[in-house]
Amino acid sequence: MKVLPEVVVKLIDYFESLPGIGPRTAERLSFYLLRTPASFRSDFSKLIGGLEKEVTLCKHCFNISSHDLCAICESQGRDRETLCVVEEPLDLIAVENSGYKGLYHVLGGALSPLNNIGPDDLHIQELIDRVSKGDFKEIILATNPSVEGEATAMYIKTRLNNYGVKITRLGRGLPVGADVEFADSQTLARSFEGRKDY
Amino acid sequence: MKVLPEVVVKLIDYFESLPGIGPRTAERLSFYLLRTPASFRSDFSKLIGGLEKEVTLCKHCFNISSHDLCAICESQGRDRETLCVVEEPLDLIAVENSGYKGLYHVLGGALSPLNNIGPDDLHIQELIDRVSKGDFKEIILATNPSVEGEATAMYIKTRLNNYGVKITRLGRGLPVGADVEFADSQTLARSFEGRKDY
Repeated sequence: MKVLPEVVVKLIDYFESLPGIGPRTAERLSFYLLRTPASFRSDFSKLIGGLEKEVTLCKHCFNISSHDLCAICESQGRDRETLCVVEEPLDLIAVENSGYKGLYHVLGGALSPLNNIGPDDLHIQELIDRVSKGDFKEIILATNPSVEGEATAMYIKTRLNNYGVKITRLGRGLPVGADVEFADSQTLARSFEGRKDY
Repeated sequence: MKVLPEVVVKLIDYFESLPGIGPRTAERLSFYLLRTPASFRSDFSKLIGGLEKEVTLCKHCFNISSHDLCAICESQGRDRETLCVVEEPLDLIAVENSGYKGLYHVLGGALSPLNNIGPDDLHIQELIDRVSKGDFKEIILATNPSVEGEATAMYIKTRLNNYGVKITRLGRGLPVGADVEFADSQTLARSFEGRKDY
């Protein structure tokens, strides 16, 4: 028998459809919301419903933005000769937090033939256009070190080869805080390749 | 510098304030929402904003409900002589899924002097009233097997002692699928106390 009101069941379903949220967490979140002040729910609800009007993609770099150009593309304080290519806006945030000061280009994903994602589904042509028009000295390929990310980096490198711009790829090796004993063989091999004078 | 539009930052904050959601998950959920169809966000938003109007507490058992009386209290198919006392609506759902067919009483929490939660903060008086007026044969105390839950069960038992109704407490012992080797000593002691003819 239906123990819960229809709206609560629906709310649980919606929460459950979000990534990383299982049925129990969805229940817990829904019941938590039931106990929050009405003002919290109303603000939260307006934020979600209003994303459409408030958020768009930057025309230059395809980062999410509240205007035609995002804060980074508009800023005068950035190094405009370096372009970092990432898969998703979340990657951009991670790179930004690491202290990078140049510009970005968000691809919107990575090449993945298995999922029918080809070059035309990503903002790759726009990247080529930017590079051909811009005064970039270095393009840093910061796609993920996964099969898809590597394939995407390789593809972009091929497309950009004739533009006389330096193309680099993020360094690979042991992450900070890691343990040599537990590092996988590929990571360890990469960290040998990438060893530096000390 | 601010990399993200204000609304997205706020949305991340709201997600982060929910229980069990850390900063990274909050980011991931917010970015996921940005990519969902506008109709998904609009429906989700309406559900959250509309909880106020759609959901109330059942007048009898204090389960969440869309009417004055919840589906269980209204149903004619339940065993109306058995009353199961639980702390929260989520406990009710768990008990319901275990196949219980009687009625419920949701306390709205457990006694917790450290958090200033006394008998008057829970629906205990309403429970006494229901028992004194009703034809219940058995009251099953299904509060959590925690310090607070035990104290609450004990308190309720004392208050109900004079009403000539059978009072039981949920059985304790090894959970299904558990390992004797790894069971904590208290649980094991309880499962010895609760051993049955085989």
